[in-house]
Amino acid sequence: MRVVDLINKKKDGKILSKEEIQFIVSGYTNGHIPDYQMAAFLMAIYFKGMNRDEISNLTLSYIESGDIIDLSSIDGIKVDKHSSGGVGDKISLIVIPLVAALGIPVAKMSGRGLGHTGGTIDKLESIEGFNTNLDMNTFIDNVNKYKMAIAGQTANLTPADKKTYALRDVTGSVDSIPLIASSIMSKKIASGADAIVLDVKVGAGAFMKSLDKAKELAETMVDIGKSLNRKTIAIITNMNEPLGREVGNANEVREAMEVLKGNGSEDETTVALTIASYMSILGGVFEDFDSAYMKLKHIIKSGKAIEKFREFVRIQGGNTDIIGNPDMLPKAKNNIEIRAKKDGYIKFIKADNIGLAAMLLGAGRKNKEDTIDFSAGITVNKKYGEKVSKGDTVFVLHTNIENYTEAENIVKNSFSISKVKPAAIKYVYDIIK
Amino acid sequence: MRVVDLINKKKDGKILSKEEIQFIVSGYTNGHIPDYQMAAFLMAIYFKGMNRDEISNLTLSYIESGDIIDLSSIDGIKVDKHSSGGVGDKISLIVIPLVAALGIPVAKMSGRGLGHTGGTIDKLESIEGFNTNLDMNTFIDNVNKYKMAIAGQTANLTPADKKTYALRDVTGSVDSIPLIASSIMSKKIASGADAIVLDVKVGAGAFMKSLDKAKELAETMVDIGKSLNRKTIAIITNMNEPLGREVGNANEVREAMEVLKGNGSEDETTVALTIASYMSILGGVFEDFDSAYMKLKHIIKSGKAIEKFREFVRIQGGNTDIIGNPDMLPKAKNNIEIRAKKDGYIKFIKADNIGLAAMLLGAGRKNKEDTIDFSAGITVNKKYGEKVSKGDTVFVLHTNIENYTEAENIVKNSFSISKVKPAAIKYVYDIIK
Repeated sequence: MRVVDLINKKKDGKILSKEEIQFIVSGYTNGHIPDYQMAAFLMAIYFKGMNRDEISNLTLSYIESGDIIDLSSIDGIKVDKHSSGGVGDKISLIVIPLVAALGIPVAKMSGRGLGHTGGTIDKLESIEGFNTNLDMNTFIDNVNKYKMAIAGQTANLTPADKKTYALRDVTGSVDSIPLIASSIMSKKIASGADAIVLDVKVGAGAFMKSLDKAKELAETMVDIGKSLNRKTIAIITNMNEPLGREVGNANEVREAMEVLKGNGSEDETTVALTIASYMSILGGVFEDFDSAYMKLKHIIKSGKAIEKFREFVRIQGGNTDIIGNPDMLPKAKNNIEIRAKKDGYIKFIKADNIGLAAMLLGAGRKNKEDTIDFSAGITVNKKYGEKVSKGDTVFVLHTNIENYTEAENIVKNSFSISKVKPAAIKYVYDIIK
Repeated sequence: MRVVDLINKKKDGKILSKEEIQFIVSGYTNGHIPDYQMAAFLMAIYFKGMNRDEISNLTLSYIESGDIIDLSSIDGIKVDKHSSGGVGDKISLIVIPLVAALGIPVAKMSGRGLGHTGGTIDKLESIEGFNTNLDMNTFIDNVNKYKMAIAGQTANLTPADKKTYALRDVTGSVDSIPLIASSIMSKKIASGADAIVLDVKVGAGAFMKSLDKAKELAETMVDIGKSLNRKTIAIITNMNEPLGREVGNANEVREAMEVLKGNGSEDETTVALTIASYMSILGGVFEDFDSAYMKLKHIIKSGKAIEKFREFVRIQGGNTDIIGNPDMLPKAKNNIEIRAKKDGYIKFIKADNIGLAAMLLGAGRKNKEDTIDFSAGITVNKKYGEKVSKGDTVFVLHTNIENYTEAENIVKNSFSISKVKPAAIKYVYDIIK
């Protein structure tokens, strides 16, 4: 097999066999195939796409390139959840205790944040003592005993995808649905998931800007799951404005606890309960969505949800006093209010810009090496459609840096107020099974 | 400027500015832009194409990347000729003395052959003593005095194209018309040509397999010429079967001399005279094609053409005795006849296979380092449409190697005989001005 022949084959829109895909992926991972041939191959995929078989073979090649985590010693169906990345996305913090409270094992491997989207591990580490460096035995023991555990990824998962992703980033083939779908699904499957609920975000703050593209990505990932025997459901959710009212780390933990206590914002609560419902359906506890949703609402109302969160913090070594006293979470020195300049209704809030501003305030990483200020972030006081009067606080910026002008200007230019109340929006657009 | 942004811009089908193209070409040539980004960029060009301005700016960037030969000390309009590569293509050997005989300066820089197509320099070197290593002064002096000279390329012409071509070859972006056209035209212009006649071959033995693609390439190159102030005409010619009756080196010189003596095959003579006619029109000697063609025929008939060839051989240091005695040219030990197995008419001869077989017999190079056996080659005894009887010799293979079975089998499987006389074919399909 010659690489250039395979590049030409894909370039001409032909279908690559499983052997051909494995040849390229393993050759590239072990260094026998140079970056320049892989770059051309990826660009050919960008233009010509891949069919279902090719995408599932590509996913398999990524999985087989590294470690595969064996969670077979955990009883029950291990249901994982993945978000395609958004601003103020604290859903994992909410669904881990919620789903675990139903007796479904949630073995969560998670990453750190980069750019305008945050990472679940970072958020949880804003809780004093919270430890995400669990060894595999403790991780598995905790899931068996408490039905939940979270750990940072330490295994050598999907190195082929990691190497390919770095190349895509500098050669213009990031926005290819077959490549995005296989990248996400290979990581989830290599992490040991039996079943996967995908939260595909769409809108200004998401990677997918149009509903059509989001649906295509969702369908592609659900197909991969099916072809590799993982029950998979994708939920397409709104990411035009930030999710909930908090963007950052400690403030997102605070908001997650509010949702678990029954006081969450409507969008955050709806999306979290929808995802948790489908996780519990895939976990085999419920047959239909309505029963799952009602039961989860009841778990929140009864106080069982926040108690499960307390247990979650405790078993990971965190200080559980924060549950009764959220003010113990890190707080920033400077709290800058951004006010409405006229009366009206919030017409839009550009989520990606809010994420970017939060990063500049210290809440996120521009580069992998950057450290995070857990207390930094942005509070979204007024959300889409809410009424404001001139002088009302729309945002509060939290930061310990003194030169916050850039972030302040970004936020000031990232929302608008209209005279008429804008039309209601959907939080959940579609479910792809 | 970031390379990845330019890759994405082209990927999205947008137009690159002159500065952006220069940034990529010069950055790649000097090593600041890595192969993998260039490979992705080239694949994006393959899919999205380039408009006339972009192609002409790309050509200019290639030209400016290296030496530009200054032929201003040669009087008159320097007309160059380029062939897109074919089998048995000995046109340059014929047109150099023919056009020079009209007083038009022909300053020919030429390359060596690789693969199934031969090089003019190789062919001429089969003449004992023929020297193509002329220094620039001798080259220019000869053109001023005799109106003709040929030399191998020694200057550092279009290094950006050279580096890019090597990358295209292994990353699947060879067959892109903007890239082919800019590659060819940049070399011709950097070689100092004022005017260019392009022989774009189409058919089994050519790089362009369809007339549409050949026309597109021809039009693109003519446009580049116009935009960079070089008078350019393209002639689209038939390369389904080999041109003329000889494929090799010494035997091609012998055949070229036959054409100059007025005894050439119809296809070889027609194509050579057509090209020479347009060269003499661009050279300013004739206004219309018919006058040029008639005059050139007369030059052949009068014996002036072969005398100009004798002068050509003499001034380049070659043994002119070969003109009167072509048998002095190198001859191979083994001469294997391939015979017709039935009566009928030659229906097709697959030119690329004949070129490949000739290479295997020793007439060409598989790799750059290979040496050529000037005496090796193939004689095409019967051409398309000619009548054959069972047992007639269709081809003669000439070689000094003993194991010629592979080449013999290729040739045996590269022609067919039909009962009915096939339709007449065109030698020249179109003229693009």
